[in-house]
Amino acid sequence: MTAKSPEHTPVTVIGLGAMGRALAAAFVAGGHPTTVWNRTPGKAKELVAQGALEAADLTAAIEASPLIVVCVFDEAAVRELLTPVGSSLAGRTVAMLTTFTPKSAVETSAWLAEQQAGYLGGAVMAVPDMIGTPGSQLFYSGPKDLFDTYHKPLELLGVSRHVGEDPGTSALYETALLSGMYAMFAGFQHGAALIGTGGVSATEFAGYAVPFVQAMATMLPLDAEFIDKGDYTTDVQSLEFNRSALEHIVHVSQDQGIGTDVPGLIMELMDRQIRAGHGADSATRMFESIKHPQG
Amino acid sequence: MTAKSPEHTPVTVIGLGAMGRALAAAFVAGGHPTTVWNRTPGKAKELVAQGALEAADLTAAIEASPLIVVCVFDEAAVRELLTPVGSSLAGRTVAMLTTFTPKSAVETSAWLAEQQAGYLGGAVMAVPDMIGTPGSQLFYSGPKDLFDTYHKPLELLGVSRHVGEDPGTSALYETALLSGMYAMFAGFQHGAALIGTGGVSATEFAGYAVPFVQAMATMLPLDAEFIDKGDYTTDVQSLEFNRSALEHIVHVSQDQGIGTDVPGLIMELMDRQIRAGHGADSATRMFESIKHPQG
Ligand SMILES: NC(=O)c1ccc[n+]([C@@H]2O[C@H](COP(=O)([O-])OP(=O)(O)OC[C@H]3O[C@@H](n4cnc5c(N)ncnc54)[C@H](OP(=O)(O)O)[C@@H]3O)[C@@H](O)[C@H]2O)c1
Ligand SMILES: NC(=O)c1ccc[n+]([C@@H]2O[C@H](COP(=O)([O-])OP(=O)(O)OC[C@H]3O[C@@H](n4cnc5c(N)ncnc54)[C@H](OP(=O)(O)O)[C@@H]3O)[C@@H](O)[C@H]2O)c1
Repeated sequence: MTAKSPEHTPVTVIGLGAMGRALAAAFVAGGHPTTVWNRTPGKAKELVAQGALEAADLTAAIEASPLIVVCVFDEAAVRELLTPVGSSLAGRTVAMLTTFTPKSAVETSAWLAEQQAGYLGGAVMAVPDMIGTPGSQLFYSGPKDLFDTYHKPLELLGVSRHVGEDPGTSALYETALLSGMYAMFAGFQHGAALIGTGGVSATEFAGYAVPFVQAMATMLPLDAEFIDKGDYTTDVQSLEFNRSALEHIVHVSQDQGIGTDVPGLIMELMDRQIRAGHGADSATRMFESIKHPQG
Repeated sequence: MTAKSPEHTPVTVIGLGAMGRALAAAFVAGGHPTTVWNRTPGKAKELVAQGALEAADLTAAIEASPLIVVCVFDEAAVRELLTPVGSSLAGRTVAMLTTFTPKSAVETSAWLAEQQAGYLGGAVMAVPDMIGTPGSQLFYSGPKDLFDTYHKPLELLGVSRHVGEDPGTSALYETALLSGMYAMFAGFQHGAALIGTGGVSATEFAGYAVPFVQAMATMLPLDAEFIDKGDYTTDVQSLEFNRSALEHIVHVSQDQGIGTDVPGLIMELMDRQIRAGHGADSATRMFESIKHPQG
C-alpha cells in the first residue's frame, strides 16, 4: 500500500447503529474515502448516497483502510466479529469506539498486537446528533504515535484528546465523567421533587439550579486537591458540619413526603467516615467511603 | 418610632456565630445602624470596633430595630430564644437566616403573626466569607411587601430573590439546590476514585470534569420539561439505554476495585422504573423513583 495524503486517509467504519452511522457520515463529509459494513444489511443506504462505499463482507471492509473504526453494541459483539478475521487486521489500526471496560481494552489491545495490528482505545462523550459539532468530545488512549497518525480523521468526530498510553485510560475517563453526570442528574431530580412539593415547577427550579451547579462545579478542583494530598485536615466546613446539612435535607424530604435515597446515601457515605473518627476532617473525606468497597 | 430613610433602616442581628458575624459586618459596612447580640458574650468585639452597637440583653437588641435578623445554630435555638420575648417582637419583622425546615418556617411565621410580628423565611446560599460578594445568593419567602420594605439592607448580603409567599419556600429552594450540589460532589468523587486507578490525579480529572459537568448542566431544563409534563415518552436514549450505561459504570468500578455505592444507587433507581414496565421511557423517569418513598 502506498502512502496517502494524510488529509484523506481511507477509513472503515464497522457497525452502522445510531453512533456508527454518525461517525461514518462525519468521515464522508470530511472528504475521507469511507468504507462501511454492518452485520445486518440495509443500514448503509443513506451513507452510500452521501459517498460512502459499502463493503461486500467484513474482510473486504477491513482491507479497504488502514484505520478501522469499530462501533458495535458491546464487547461481546466486538469479540464475535473480530476473532475470525484477525489475520486481515495486520498492519492496520483499530480505533475502538464501542463502549469498553479498561480491562477489555487492555486485553483487546494485546490480542491485536499478536495480529500485528494497532489499538486505540476511544470513548465518545456525545450522542450521535452531536458528532462533528464542537460539543462532541472524544478521549483516546494507547500509543500516542497512532493517535497522531490518525488525528486528522478522528478530529472530524469532535474535540479529540489523547489521555494516556494505557489503552484502558480513555474508558476510565468515560466512566468517570459519566459518574459525575448521572449523579448530578439524580441530585437535580431530588431537588425538583422537593421543590415540587411547594408548587414550584421543575423548569422554574432549573433556572436556579443550572447556574448554581455550574458555580459549585468550580469548587471541584478544591476537592481534587484534598484527594491528591490524601490529607483531609481542615479548619472550616468539617464533615460533621456537612453531615448536619445532609441530615437537614433528609429531614425536609421526609417532612415533604418524598423519597430520601439520594441524600440518604450521601449522609451514609459521610457517616462511615465519621464513625471511623474523622468528623473534624474536610467533607472531601467522603471520597474514602466512595473509593473503598464496603465490608 | 418615626420613619427612617430606607437606606438606613436599623437592623439587629441575633447570633454571632461565623455566619451572623458576616451578616452583621455587611450591614455595618452598608451604613445601617446595626445592633448585635449573642448568647455567649465576647463575640461582638470586632463588630463593635467597626461601628456596631452591642445590646445589653436580647430584649434591648430586639427593641433597637424594625428588622431582626436571626442567625443561630438551629430551630431549637430559635424557639428557646424567641419564646420568652414574643411580646417585644410586635410590629417588627424577623428575617430568619437560621437554616429551617419549610414546616418550621410555616409554624414560626404563624406564631410571629400572633405576636403581631412579620416573618421572612431566608436561605443563605453562601459561606460566611462570601457574604456581601456577588457570589452570595439568598432566597426569601413570605409576604412580598416585607421583602420589598427591607430589600435594601438584605441586598447588602448578596443577590436576594423573593421566591414565594409561602414562608417555607425559601427553605425548599435551599435544600433542593444543596441536594444537587452534594450529589454532584459525590459523582465527581466517584469519578476521581475511578480515574485514580489509572494513575490519573483528581486534579487532572477535574480539568475535564468541571467543563463537562457545566456543559451537562445545560441539559437539566430538558429533564425539567419531562418532569413538568409528567409524560416520559421518548424515542431516544431510553431508560433501558441509560441503565446499561450505569451497569457499565458499576462493572468498571468493580473491575477497578473501587466501591459501587454511587452508580449502584442510580442503577437501582432506574431499575425500579424498569421493573414497573417503563424501560422504553426517558431516563428522566428515574425522577419517579426519587420522588416516591419506597415500600
Ligand atoms: N448512541 C449513543 O449516544 C452513544 C454514545 C456514546 C457511546 N456509544 C457507544 O457506541 C456503541 C454503538 O452504539 P449505538 O448507539 O450505535 O448502538 P445501536 O444503535 O444499538 O447499534 C448497535 C450496532 O451494533 C451491531 N451489533 C450488535 N451486536 C452485534 C454482533 N454480535 N455482531 C456484529 N454487530 C453487532 C448492530 O448491528 P445490527 O444492525 O446487525 O444489529 C448495530 O450496528 C455502543 O458501544 C455504545 O455504548 C453510543
Ligand atoms: N456557616 C455557613 O457556611 C452557613 C451557610 C448557610 C447557612 N448557615 C446557617 O446559619 C446558621 C448559623 O450558622 P453559623 O455557621 O454561624 O454557626 P456557628 O458558627 O456554629 O454559630 C452558632 C450560633 O448559634 C448560637 N446558638 C446556638 N444555640 C443557641 C441557643 N440555644 N440560644 C441562643 N443562641 C444559640 C451560638 O451562640 P453561642 O456563641 O452562645 O454558642 C452562635 O452564635 C445555621 O442555621 C447555619 O445552618 C450557615
